Amino acid sequence: MRFDLTILGCSGAVPAYRRFPTMQLLNVQEQLFMIDCGEGAQMRFSDFSVKWGKLSHIFISHHHGDHVLGLPGLLSSMGLNHRTSPLTVFGPPKVGAFLEQACSFSEQLSFPVHFESVDPDRNALLYESRHLRVYSLPLRHSVPATGYLFQEKERPRSMRGELIEKYQIPYQAIPGIRNGDDFVSSVHGVTPNGALTIAPPAPRSFAFCSDTAYQPSLTDYIYGVDLLYHEATFLQQHEAQAKETGHSTAKDAARTALEANAGTLLLGHYSTRYPVLDRILQEAVSVFPNTILGSDGLIVPLTTRPGTG
Amino acid sequence: MRFDLTILGCSGAVPAYRRFPTMQLLNVQEQLFMIDCGEGAQMRFSDFSVKWGKLSHIFISHHHGDHVLGLPGLLSSMGLNHRTSPLTVFGPPKVGAFLEQACSFSEQLSFPVHFESVDPDRNALLYESRHLRVYSLPLRHSVPATGYLFQEKERPRSMRGELIEKYQIPYQAIPGIRNGDDFVSSVHGVTPNGALTIAPPAPRSFAFCSDTAYQPSLTDYIYGVDLLYHEATFLQQHEAQAKETGHSTAKDAARTALEANAGTLLLGHYSTRYPVLDRILQEAVSVFPNTILGSDGLIVPLTTRPGTG
Repeated sequence: MRFDLTILGCSGAVPAYRRFPTMQLLNVQEQLFMIDCGEGAQMRFSDFSVKWGKLSHIFISHHHGDHVLGLPGLLSSMGLNHRTSPLTVFGPPKVGAFLEQACSFSEQLSFPVHFESVDPDRNALLYESRHLRVYSLPLRHSVPATGYLFQEKERPRSMRGELIEKYQIPYQAIPGIRNGDDFVSSVHGVTPNGALTIAPPAPRSFAFCSDTAYQPSLTDYIYGVDLLYHEATFLQQHEAQAKETGHSTAKDAARTALEANAGTLLLGHYSTRYPVLDRILQEAVSVFPNTILGSDGLIVPLTTRPGTG
Repeated sequence: MRFDLTILGCSGAVPAYRRFPTMQLLNVQEQLFMIDCGEGAQMRFSDFSVKWGKLSHIFISHHHGDHVLGLPGLLSSMGLNHRTSPLTVFGPPKVGAFLEQACSFSEQLSFPVHFESVDPDRNALLYESRHLRVYSLPLRHSVPATGYLFQEKERPRSMRGELIEKYQIPYQAIPGIRNGDDFVSSVHGVTPNGALTIAPPAPRSFAFCSDTAYQPSLTDYIYGVDLLYHEATFLQQHEAQAKETGHSTAKDAARTALEANAGTLLLGHYSTRYPVLDRILQEAVSVFPNTILGSDGLIVPLTTRPGTG
């Protein structure tokens, strides 16, 4: 069951050192969800052989250029490639205004684009599919900004196949047992569900938190998340600048990961003042050891952990 | 005297194979003129270590996304880098509308941006500096589009230094002699200018012609140009598609170079149907041998030729 994240761009506001602006792709069972869409998105699709057709939803954090300027070119090129399936874009209201402007300027697209407005002050369910739920996460930036939590749904328990014959379980009883029913028969009486089934792997989760200043209340919404992407625009030595611009230091990101009991912390949105990122990593690792540096092209798979019970 | 062209992007409408959309930089004595500004311009500035501060003018051919979508990010990042010197953008009226929209959406820039509207049906002088004149070139595309001719100004003749003493030429007579005056003295009579001076190198010229269908009337405006950049979106085998979309084949580009008696032909704006460009080059070379394939990062210096007379 595929659930992995590809970093298409890891730069802060001004791209440099071959780092493109913020954009990520989450692959959930071969359906692609894009998070932010910085300038050059379509080039990164080409660079990393992304299949355009699998992209169904784009989640935008806020309307700053380094998070949206890839949209017009990406949409236009999907049109030139004769896309017909609809595309849905989520984001705070000003992202909708940007999108409308961009679409009004380009040629008529060959596919419908729907915009879903996100209230950046609420933690709300935005999207639900068979495998996934997506929630908004209130962030704290210089303009209204929202993060996103991608939460895999709990899967049903698995039958222990070898017991079907032993207990002579009829076919039609199996869906109920996978959903937790005990099995009752005249021969064996009540067989508890736990003896018949195996717990599914624990549902996986990914939280995207950018752009944002350190925000302690975030912890409540993302507690126990498997993979936390948190911006780390600055080092702690530039803390004043981080506060002034509504951004985080690497230490802020690591504190959030620690307080949220995250599995892994993934960093990004680096300022151009850091051509090399070793100190960003060191600063975060000193607070939260399980930290990785995001880089353009990096793929982070979310591995399954055994379920309990 | 520097006069060279750097290709920042050589792709057609959809970027692919590490080819960025159309954008070029002309360096004339360390002043930078940008021609078209496709998505990713600011990344290419970083990739090729372009000094932002030297850019004073941007010439845009038409308002299609692959020629303008780099503008918002480039302008925004120049602002974040605290630029204060003004920037002038030339282009057909709809480019002005795009620019206004882009500027209205971004934060207040730290420098003024002036837009100069270009009539795409006229061959007109647009800009003049100490070293250079720039003219518009009427093109034929699916929307109003203009090319640009960059024409170095004739430089004054050089004095033969060793003759100043021989003829006892006073200091104040030298500017006149460099501009073609003969020297008249009571001792030597009339010394003709040709005996006192050396002709300057021939002025150099560069024409940018994209996007355009084959356009025979272009020849009149660019006759004898040293370097001709002409789009070559298709091979001749896709001629029908070229005509339908207002583009040229490699053969069209080569015919234009031949008829205009150009020095060198430079190709670009390749369709994604050609991952490899050998056939594009072969097709052009068979008509106009002195052809080079544009590629991202290529620098084409315009060498000086001795003047005559």
